Amino acid sequence: MIEHPQTADECRNHLERLRSLVDDYLVTVIPEDDRVPETLRSAIRYSLDAGGKRLRPILTLLAYESFDHDPSDIIRPACALELIHTYSLIHDDLPCMDDDDFRRGQPTLHRKYNDAIAVLAGDALHALAFELLSSARNNDVVREVSRAIGIFGMLAGQVADVEAEGNDITREQIEFIHRNKTGALIEASLKIGAMLGGAENDRLSTFSEYGQRIGLAFQIIDDVLDITGSQDKLGKDIGSDDRNLKATYPRVIGLEESRAFAKKLIDEAKEEIAKIGPASGIFKFIGDFILMRDS
Amino acid sequence: MIEHPQTADECRNHLERLRSLVDDYLVTVIPEDDRVPETLRSAIRYSLDAGGKRLRPILTLLAYESFDHDPSDIIRPACALELIHTYSLIHDDLPCMDDDDFRRGQPTLHRKYNDAIAVLAGDALHALAFELLSSARNNDVVREVSRAIGIFGMLAGQVADVEAEGNDITREQIEFIHRNKTGALIEASLKIGAMLGGAENDRLSTFSEYGQRIGLAFQIIDDVLDITGSQDKLGKDIGSDDRNLKATYPRVIGLEESRAFAKKLIDEAKEEIAKIGPASGIFKFIGDFILMRDS
Repeated sequence: MIEHPQTADECRNHLERLRSLVDDYLVTVIPEDDRVPETLRSAIRYSLDAGGKRLRPILTLLAYESFDHDPSDIIRPACALELIHTYSLIHDDLPCMDDDDFRRGQPTLHRKYNDAIAVLAGDALHALAFELLSSARNNDVVREVSRAIGIFGMLAGQVADVEAEGNDITREQIEFIHRNKTGALIEASLKIGAMLGGAENDRLSTFSEYGQRIGLAFQIIDDVLDITGSQDKLGKDIGSDDRNLKATYPRVIGLEESRAFAKKLIDEAKEEIAKIGPASGIFKFIGDFILMRDS
Repeated sequence: MIEHPQTADECRNHLERLRSLVDDYLVTVIPEDDRVPETLRSAIRYSLDAGGKRLRPILTLLAYESFDHDPSDIIRPACALELIHTYSLIHDDLPCMDDDDFRRGQPTLHRKYNDAIAVLAGDALHALAFELLSSARNNDVVREVSRAIGIFGMLAGQVADVEAEGNDITREQIEFIHRNKTGALIEASLKIGAMLGGAENDRLSTFSEYGQRIGLAFQIIDDVLDITGSQDKLGKDIGSDDRNLKATYPRVIGLEESRAFAKKLIDEAKEEIAKIGPASGIFKFIGDFILMRDS
């Protein structure tokens, strides 16, 4: 029986441990092999080494661990989620998309290399993610992720986001964008951890409800930080949403209302996840972290 | 026991039948659903409806059928290969890549819509392909395809191709590019059909050897047609390889030598596939077709 972390310190230490597990695996994910062109290898390394919170694979590992399994069993499929997240950021930063110059305090990939390499490195991460997922030998996991990042999920959100730029949008539209663009992958991260852990339908639905709420809250806080955050801490240009006339929650419902809505979503998420018992402590901690984060 | 087509007419009719099977399925692949933004749906439809030979899914269906199974059993995973091929063409045509304006007689997707939609529609097809592959409920199939189109396959070829532009290259380099950029997906198309058909290792290796050879020959003939072909028949700009200083076989070994090498590869492919017995007739026909094609 695994001792589930409860206090803030225990949670923080445990998340650090899982983060190291993810970082250590990611270092090995692109083998030194003559068959991989050096530019492709180094472009992928550049993107993966830039860091980030590793939120998605950590959620996968935690969901799996809540069934009293050892998280290192599923490090490969868990890291697939980080590869997908990284690919989506690379394509999102392209000049034809958000045209961002900085990401995590470094020049974006297309600024460091060029647009062609950025398109291809993103595509390569996308493909490699499915190789890692296939290692779990569970077809439902492959299906879950491909749907979450496809025309019914992440890509639907991306296209709606591109089309919303510069237009007046409704609260319904911004919710559609954020739920799909950001929420779907976060929800899937939790669900595949739970599926691999052996979840029955009701437990799966608990993770799904929790994931939808923290995913939406995460993106709302992202919008808020683009206005109120510190460029140094965020490692990217702030105010870029506003300059690009991006669809954001603060633009649609204002800053205070956005913060209040995120708080409401996190409260609901914590209530939902409490159903899983003692293992829920760290999921509540993550909810609070999403609300309080400044980077 | 299935009657395997033998004469040229039987082969031609059978290929037409499989092509209809593929086309009919592709019409249904993007559901009319409010959750899919209309632009994304129509951009994907535009690319899939433009036609093409449907060579890759047909090879998957044929390999499966060679084990006396009904090809319609695996129409979804087979069509995944066409989705991947289509995504790779969309990204390849982008201004930051080959910057092509026409494909199959129509404006390329980024000319018809814009660069952002082309990047995202390609990404959506990529994800959807893995959803279709997962329907076969065979993890080795997911792994095979993800490897074939990733850093050890198609993407390695794409990056090497981008980097070769404008540079002097060796015969070894052009072979690396073509084997990966084009050959890997064609080989995988055959292998997954065979895997789903229940192939043992030696039969799998026969399809693999055949696939590598027809894949390389296919791309060599593509290079040749870019010089000698008819723009009307090809539906794309000819001479663009030369203008873009692309790495091609004719540039490295000349036109005649390129044709002779393609012929040698097809001869070897036919010899290899003969090992599977009566079912090999149509694979030989396809080899000849690749050599003779004018579009």
